[in-house]
Amino acid sequence: MSQFPKQQKIAAIIGTGVIGAGWAARYLANGYIVKAWDPGENAAEKLQQSIENAWPSLQKIGLKQDADLANLHFCQTLAEACADAQIIQESAPEVLEIKSKLLQEIALSAPVDAIIGSSTSGFKPSLLQKSVNNPERVIVTHPFNPVYLLPLVEVVGGELTTAATIEQAKALYTALGMHPLHVRKEIDGHLSDRLLEALWRENLHLVNDGIATTGELDEAIIYGPGLRWALMGTNLTYHLAGGDAGMRHMLEQFGPALKLPWTKLEAPELSTRLIDSMVAGTQQQAGERSVKELEQLRDNCLISIMEALAQYEVGAGKVLSDYRKAI
Amino acid sequence: MSQFPKQQKIAAIIGTGVIGAGWAARYLANGYIVKAWDPGENAAEKLQQSIENAWPSLQKIGLKQDADLANLHFCQTLAEACADAQIIQESAPEVLEIKSKLLQEIALSAPVDAIIGSSTSGFKPSLLQKSVNNPERVIVTHPFNPVYLLPLVEVVGGELTTAATIEQAKALYTALGMHPLHVRKEIDGHLSDRLLEALWRENLHLVNDGIATTGELDEAIIYGPGLRWALMGTNLTYHLAGGDAGMRHMLEQFGPALKLPWTKLEAPELSTRLIDSMVAGTQQQAGERSVKELEQLRDNCLISIMEALAQYEVGAGKVLSDYRKAI
Repeated sequence: MSQFPKQQKIAAIIGTGVIGAGWAARYLANGYIVKAWDPGENAAEKLQQSIENAWPSLQKIGLKQDADLANLHFCQTLAEACADAQIIQESAPEVLEIKSKLLQEIALSAPVDAIIGSSTSGFKPSLLQKSVNNPERVIVTHPFNPVYLLPLVEVVGGELTTAATIEQAKALYTALGMHPLHVRKEIDGHLSDRLLEALWRENLHLVNDGIATTGELDEAIIYGPGLRWALMGTNLTYHLAGGDAGMRHMLEQFGPALKLPWTKLEAPELSTRLIDSMVAGTQQQAGERSVKELEQLRDNCLISIMEALAQYEVGAGKVLSDYRKAI
Repeated sequence: MSQFPKQQKIAAIIGTGVIGAGWAARYLANGYIVKAWDPGENAAEKLQQSIENAWPSLQKIGLKQDADLANLHFCQTLAEACADAQIIQESAPEVLEIKSKLLQEIALSAPVDAIIGSSTSGFKPSLLQKSVNNPERVIVTHPFNPVYLLPLVEVVGGELTTAATIEQAKALYTALGMHPLHVRKEIDGHLSDRLLEALWRENLHLVNDGIATTGELDEAIIYGPGLRWALMGTNLTYHLAGGDAGMRHMLEQFGPALKLPWTKLEAPELSTRLIDSMVAGTQQQAGERSVKELEQLRDNCLISIMEALAQYEVGAGKVLSDYRKAI
C-alpha cells in the first residue's frame, strides 16, 4: 500500500545532481510527490538546497495547486524511490555502464506501466534499454539546464520502445509546461547536443589556437546571434537572410562559402536533394507567413528580449539602456 | 563645398542589400545624413522600402534628436556617396574581387581621414586593404541581421590598419548603440561566423543524413539552449553547468565526451594548456560573482525572456502562457 493519497502523482528522481535536482523542482512545482535517491555524500541536503534555490523562480513561473516543498522525500534505496512512481527520471553520470546498471535496477522496482526516462545527453535509447525488464517503457528524456525553467525535453524511443510510451511521455511533459521534441531517429547526442557540441568544439579550437578568449567568444554570441536564437533557430534565421526568396536564395548566395575554411568542421555537399530538403523544411516552418511578416515578428521579439535583459543590465539589454540614456 | 550643414555627420552606404539597408536605417536613426549607392535594379526604391519597414522598430528603440528619414540620399555614383563621409560602410556581395575593387574606388573618393569599414562576414582585412590608398583606415566592421537592432559589430584590423582607426571605430559604434567587439587576430569568418558556421554545417549534415527536418532542429534550439544564448555564451553556460567548481569541473566531467562521435567536427585535445585557458577565461567572465549568483541572474533573465516572447506567442513564450492558463 502506498503511503500517499492515490490521486497524487509520484515522480522518482534517480540521481540528484544539477539535472536530477532540476527535475525534482519541476515535478514539485507541478504538484507531484517526489521520491529521490542518490548515493552521493550529503545528497539529501544538497538536493534540498538546490530546490530551495529554484523555488522563487518557479513561483514566478506559477505553481500548480498541490505544489508543496514538503512533497519531497529523500529515500534510502533506489527500490523505495521507484516503487509507486508513474515516471522515473534517471539522471546519473554520463557513463554507459552506470546508467545501464541503474536502469536495470529501476526496471525491477518500478511499476510495470511507469515511464522510465533517462536524462542522457548522448546515448541512444536502444543501447540503454538492452537487458532491462519491460524495455518498451524505457526512453530518453533529455532536458536542459536549468531543467525547472527551460521547456525543451528531447524524447527519443529505442528499438524496443512502444509508440504508446512516446505519446504518454509527450502528454506528461506538456502538462509539466515543457516542450517535448520527439527525436524520430536515434543518433549519438540526439539533436540539440549535436548542435551544441559543434559550437562548443569550435569554441575550444578557437581558444586552443590562441585566437580569442572565452569571454570574447561569448560576446560574439550574446550581443548578436544569441538574441535571435531565443525565437528562431539557424534555419528560419537563414530563411529570413535570403530576402523574399528565402532559403533557396540564401543557399544560392552563401552556399559557395561552405567551401571556405571558416570552421574546423567540413560541410556536406550542397546537393539538389539537400537544397530541396532545406527549402521544404523552412517553407513549412514559415507556413503562411511571408518573410516580411516574420521579420516584423522577429523585430518585435528582439526588442522585447533586449528590454527584458535591460532590467538586469545584462548583455544587449545593458547596451540598449546605455543608448537610451544617451539620447 | 558640402551641401549639408557642417555639424551633421555623414555615413556612406555602398551596397544596399539586407545588410547595407540595415546600416542605413541605424545611421538615420542616429541622426546621420546617409548617402547610399548601389548599382542594382530599383535599388533606391528597395532601400526606401527596407528603411520604412525598419523605422517603427527604431522608434521603439529610441531615435536621436536629428533622426529624419529625409536625411536619406540615394547617389548616382559611388564617388558622390563617399565624398563627404566620416564613415563608409561597404556591404557588397561576399566575393573578394568585387569587394576589393569597390574598396579601391571608395579609398579614392573618401576623405583621407574617414573610416572605411567592410561588412564582410568572412574575409580578413589584410586581404581587403591590399592595393587600397591609405589602407590604415580600412577595417572589417561585421554586423548582424537585423543590423538596425542587433548591437554586435565585429571590428577587425588588418596588418596595415592603425590602432587609432580601431579606437575611432569602437567609439563611433558605441555611440550608435552597438557593441563593438575587437577581434584581435585575423581569421577567416572572424569569431561569430566561425561559431555560427559550425552550427549551420551540423544542421546541414543532420538534414542531409535524414535525421531531422529544419523545423525539428530549430525547435532543438529555441525551446532550450537558444534562450540561454541571449544572455550567456557557451563558455559561461558551461561554467555554470560545472556546479560550484565551474569550468574546471565541467571539463573533467564532460571532457571525455569530446571523444564521442557527437558531431561531424573533431574536437581538439583537452591539454592542460587548453583547460587552463578555458578556466582562466570563464573565471574572468564570472568576475566576483559566484556560480550561485550567476544562476540567480540567469534564472531572472530567462523568465523575463520567456515572458517577453509570451507577448507574441512565440516559442518558449507560448509554452509559458499555455502552462499559466492551465494552472
